[in-house]
Amino acid sequence: MTLPAIDAATLMARLQRLGEVGRGADGRLIRLAGSEADGAGRDLVAGWMRMAGMEVTVDAVGNLVGLWRGGAPAGAAPVMLGSHIDTVIDSGIYDGCYGVLAGLAVIEALQAAGTRLSRPVALAAFTNEEGVRFAPDMLGSLVYAGGMAAEAALAIHGTDGVTLREALTAIGYAGDATPGFLRPHAYLELHIEQGPVLEHEGIAIGAVDRLQGISWQSFVLTGEANHAGTTPMAMRRDAGLVAAQAIAFLRGRIAPRGGSTLATVGTLTLDPGAINVIPGMVRFTLDLRDPDEARLAEAERGFAAELQRLSEAEGVSVESTRLARFEPVIFDAGIVAQVEAAAARRSLSCRRITSGAGHDAQMMARICPAAMIFVPSRGGISHNPREFTEFRQLADGAAVLLDSAMALAR
Amino acid sequence: MTLPAIDAATLMARLQRLGEVGRGADGRLIRLAGSEADGAGRDLVAGWMRMAGMEVTVDAVGNLVGLWRGGAPAGAAPVMLGSHIDTVIDSGIYDGCYGVLAGLAVIEALQAAGTRLSRPVALAAFTNEEGVRFAPDMLGSLVYAGGMAAEAALAIHGTDGVTLREALTAIGYAGDATPGFLRPHAYLELHIEQGPVLEHEGIAIGAVDRLQGISWQSFVLTGEANHAGTTPMAMRRDAGLVAAQAIAFLRGRIAPRGGSTLATVGTLTLDPGAINVIPGMVRFTLDLRDPDEARLAEAERGFAAELQRLSEAEGVSVESTRLARFEPVIFDAGIVAQVEAAAARRSLSCRRITSGAGHDAQMMARICPAAMIFVPSRGGISHNPREFTEFRQLADGAAVLLDSAMALAR
Repeated sequence: MTLPAIDAATLMARLQRLGEVGRGADGRLIRLAGSEADGAGRDLVAGWMRMAGMEVTVDAVGNLVGLWRGGAPAGAAPVMLGSHIDTVIDSGIYDGCYGVLAGLAVIEALQAAGTRLSRPVALAAFTNEEGVRFAPDMLGSLVYAGGMAAEAALAIHGTDGVTLREALTAIGYAGDATPGFLRPHAYLELHIEQGPVLEHEGIAIGAVDRLQGISWQSFVLTGEANHAGTTPMAMRRDAGLVAAQAIAFLRGRIAPRGGSTLATVGTLTLDPGAINVIPGMVRFTLDLRDPDEARLAEAERGFAAELQRLSEAEGVSVESTRLARFEPVIFDAGIVAQVEAAAARRSLSCRRITSGAGHDAQMMARICPAAMIFVPSRGGISHNPREFTEFRQLADGAAVLLDSAMALAR
Repeated sequence: MTLPAIDAATLMARLQRLGEVGRGADGRLIRLAGSEADGAGRDLVAGWMRMAGMEVTVDAVGNLVGLWRGGAPAGAAPVMLGSHIDTVIDSGIYDGCYGVLAGLAVIEALQAAGTRLSRPVALAAFTNEEGVRFAPDMLGSLVYAGGMAAEAALAIHGTDGVTLREALTAIGYAGDATPGFLRPHAYLELHIEQGPVLEHEGIAIGAVDRLQGISWQSFVLTGEANHAGTTPMAMRRDAGLVAAQAIAFLRGRIAPRGGSTLATVGTLTLDPGAINVIPGMVRFTLDLRDPDEARLAEAERGFAAELQRLSEAEGVSVESTRLARFEPVIFDAGIVAQVEAAAARRSLSCRRITSGAGHDAQMMARICPAAMIFVPSRGGISHNPREFTEFRQLADGAAVLLDSAMALAR
């Protein structure tokens, strides 16, 4: 019996081919969930699935699932590989697509080698992972894992006012199957790191053992706009100052260099916004992440308390809104160990790593043992046309996915 | 001989009449320098000057000067009163106009009483004090005082692309006289405080003995935009964080509550400005003021040094641009004492006060003894339709202007 091997050249060619679907005249790749370009991308991927002899099913929220039975006993729960093919605006070609197309390459490698497994292998491309058009992100896998009713998801309006149902119907991907119709034995997702750690440390494979918790909040602080030249410091109610003090506190106390808690204030606007007017209002967002739920909750509490203290000292009022909150996900220790073992067998350097971003795997972890494999991202850049992973690194990641899938399906 | 007395009812009626010139259908008062509304306002004021028997002259940069000789010996340098009638966008009716129209009321009061003085009294409405359309602000008085050539001022492009020369020509206020054609014996400007101090302390009259120095700078900090979830704190180059730390430092060390230094960051924008992206760039402005030049310069130096230190620690680069810089102005001690004496004679409470904002008087102080008189502003609010000073307070201020002008012209 031949040992199965990834056809990395075909994988690369398909990544590039799919990366042209949704590329505009201005050179930007935009393949938002449920768009015409998404439809064309799905057609391409579904075609490749069928060419590989897979049974292709589309569920009610558009999740595209291919199944290769591979001679496994009827009724055996499949090992599922997957990710997504929708993109952000002005995207790179790897995020999501790499996981789907590498999964396809795994199945083709198993077929070519005539490998017999005791479990089928399934491949999923989940709907609207990026969440750019429809909120929340990871919507397809959320529904697949039972976290939201399909009807509720289909009624969500996109940023363009179109519902998910209308969008999927328009591109022919409003399917009949019930989300979750295949309950996997295990789920494994291969993805580019989207961060700098593996590249920085020169490591080929990340065995993702957890996904950090995410807390998104927005704040509105209201003080009093006043003349910058005539209002004594003691009489000011400077909302912008309080925001600045709170942000400085984040780095100083909540998320210092070297700690596991990440804190980012990515948006901030001052009102009225004139050089000689004390800002009477500031709006900003806070993105807090930590792999540990207790620390994440403590970071939220600590920031809220300090913001309150600073606001009271300045005579400024605070309004806060929770935008999103996900608890950390601990991936399956057995699968993580298999990934490490697979890397070791191929003499690839490997480390355990925490996923900083959200992924479909965190939803699938609700219904089956799940984990992820990361490969390096150059400069940690992602959601950007400069997103890049070397061919060799992509091939190595796919090989580890192949070996891990085989181990899970044996 | 009758004692001259201000006709406060007429003063008030004219303030309200002028406050309707440039008021749009949406109720907002906008009378930017050199606009059609400014032309209509000038026509109104020049008409009132002529009705009061004044010789009206327009100089090359549109400064409108009325002269009442009042039987003074030929060649005697005049006492000049004045301010401006251009406004900000969505303005109140007092800022500037009060000083011009109270000056008119002073001259009418002197005429009505048949007062004979040894000096003429002149009244100036300077061009583009607010600086909203043309930069710099206080442009007309700057040119009048010889601080900029008329030709240079006329070539300045407004925010709408129109030059000052074109704007003045269009409204018929590009005059022939040479700016500075009347060299005053003294200059006195009555103005609303535009700050909260007099109201806060329940004082009727501010004898303005100095005008604080002003430093305007803009900063661009450049770090690196990156994913908020996947970039470890130790690998971040967060430009927004550095700006926040620098702003917190301003309040903590440069401009604490109770000190004389004022520090305001009124504009700040983060780039790219997404909730889950570390800000790679921040642009902000800094408005620093202090009545003492040494302290102002020290505040600039102290901020620059700390910003450099914080930026280096974060791997962020700093670019700074000086937008405006005025040294503090010390007004004439003799005139200030006369203002205090005039208030005392009318049993009005009075305190010495520093002007936080810039005024035409600071330019006129370059060529003659100058000072200002302030009346309270409710809530310290200015550059805003809610700007308000009570009728009684306006009348008291005009009375003190009258008495002070008489003392200066005797």
